[in-house]
Amino acid sequence: MAVYTEIADDEIDRFVSGYDIGAVLSFKGIAEGVENSNYLVVTETGPHILTLYEKRVDPRDLPFFIGLMEHLSARGLTCPQPVRNRAGEALGTLAGKPAAIVTFLKGMWIRRPRVEHCAAVGTALADLHLAGEGFALTRRNALSVEGWRPLFERSVERGDSVLLGLVDAIREELDFLERAWPSGLPKGVIHADLFPDNVFFLKNQLSGLIDFYFACNDFLAYDAAICLNAWCFEADGALNVTKARALLGGYQRVRPFTDEELAALPILARGSALRFLLTRLYDWLNVPPGALVAPKDPLEYWRKLRFHQSVADIRAYGIGE
Amino acid sequence: MAVYTEIADDEIDRFVSGYDIGAVLSFKGIAEGVENSNYLVVTETGPHILTLYEKRVDPRDLPFFIGLMEHLSARGLTCPQPVRNRAGEALGTLAGKPAAIVTFLKGMWIRRPRVEHCAAVGTALADLHLAGEGFALTRRNALSVEGWRPLFERSVERGDSVLLGLVDAIREELDFLERAWPSGLPKGVIHADLFPDNVFFLKNQLSGLIDFYFACNDFLAYDAAICLNAWCFEADGALNVTKARALLGGYQRVRPFTDEELAALPILARGSALRFLLTRLYDWLNVPPGALVAPKDPLEYWRKLRFHQSVADIRAYGIGE
Repeated sequence: MAVYTEIADDEIDRFVSGYDIGAVLSFKGIAEGVENSNYLVVTETGPHILTLYEKRVDPRDLPFFIGLMEHLSARGLTCPQPVRNRAGEALGTLAGKPAAIVTFLKGMWIRRPRVEHCAAVGTALADLHLAGEGFALTRRNALSVEGWRPLFERSVERGDSVLLGLVDAIREELDFLERAWPSGLPKGVIHADLFPDNVFFLKNQLSGLIDFYFACNDFLAYDAAICLNAWCFEADGALNVTKARALLGGYQRVRPFTDEELAALPILARGSALRFLLTRLYDWLNVPPGALVAPKDPLEYWRKLRFHQSVADIRAYGIGE
Repeated sequence: MAVYTEIADDEIDRFVSGYDIGAVLSFKGIAEGVENSNYLVVTETGPHILTLYEKRVDPRDLPFFIGLMEHLSARGLTCPQPVRNRAGEALGTLAGKPAAIVTFLKGMWIRRPRVEHCAAVGTALADLHLAGEGFALTRRNALSVEGWRPLFERSVERGDSVLLGLVDAIREELDFLERAWPSGLPKGVIHADLFPDNVFFLKNQLSGLIDFYFACNDFLAYDAAICLNAWCFEADGALNVTKARALLGGYQRVRPFTDEELAALPILARGSALRFLLTRLYDWLNVPPGALVAPKDPLEYWRKLRFHQSVADIRAYGIGE
């Protein structure tokens, strides 16, 4: 939960007056999101979400994110739609920071996903991958295999304070992944962060996807591996094979994996686990003073990585039998 | 900003299904408030605020708070109105904690109050004092003069780490206030925490008051002194006499102060400044690990206290000439 920037009432009034959405009736910070500040702005025409892009987001990436939401929306995917102001711009400046207003998406995120939610998110991920086709802009995935070692180096010194032997184990995994990382798999626009808090449900039906601020171009199957890690493990650290089968099966109903993608899944899952282990480890070791967000447990992803290391083939994920 | 309790989607669905307000369409934590967790719950019938009472609130006080909001609402004061569930109860249990749903109040709080806002809040405070008449329940003010010394004792040891000499200066002020604190002033229900973030405005008209969780029975003029401190000082620490005159004048248009109240104002202002100095000092020295709220600067109230100590009579507040 994080709202980093305090916005004055007259600032928000002035900002919103540039849009055709009526006057502001209410304005509240939302205790969600980590990278940006989000506010619920109720205007005479209804609720909207205002996002202020904080310093962890590169402003040069914003046209990609905003354009992607418009592209996906136009292709029928339900996601927040950027609202353009009277000058035709979807990006403005508020309190000295880049800011955008997007439409309000009904629904709630599921705190304890069940099998049917996993199936729905698999389907939605494949829908997203198909809807992303033809999007003109591209964005490199800075958090894929080439990005991991530099990230790792920043946690080497104190990494073993979290778990003795962790630094050596990560180095070994990095050596392996850099050698074995696949190439030539189908690529496209991926969400890259489709955790439960970014998927809304309404009466148990998936009602939309949010938060495209990690989206980039990468292997489509890598996105599925991220979801597998984020949705299909139980609180005790074990993979729920029924959920994995539901998620990957839901995906395949819309976009069947190629044989190469299926063969690569275990290593993509390892890579995805390492990626979140590394960012969480860094955040854990570098909690800023006055932080408004409790850092997430990096060892959750260490346990997931260990699981995937033990996987012989994709039957461990409930598919390919 | 603080949301202390994570609520699962099925828990909120179940809780709201006990009310006649339709199904939940959206559910978001609000990054406001310090004592309780607040959520915006949009249902089929519109937006509502759900409050979860965290451990700093004594559950035995909840009937007073809830009843007061109902009493004030019935008397025409605009404030959140508790929604009763189908069993007729305004208080329920959610995630193991007391919880209430109240109506959503339109408006925004003013980050940089101007003179006209101060006038409006003075009037609203007097309205509140009149509307509170006849409320059957009572609640002692644990943060009035008898409560200050025990609170002070808990900060004695490390108080001077905030400002050298602070502990002795507070002790001296306490000695003085305990001797000189008035008696016999008109009493009633006071808000006791009417800071700018608890007063909503819509198009520069005051649209309502929120957060009655410090309300209690005490001197009515003490409430005005709290507002004076909260609304009428500039960022540089100086009292804005024009704002003070507007606030106290706005109050007097609805409920004129008695001569005794006017004479007591400087000492009530000192007491109010000491009260917030003491609570902020304690919070400053006791930030819990993983705190989601940055503690507020206690020295802001030290500077206000010093100002009031220098006041000869109420002309310093722009009235009584």
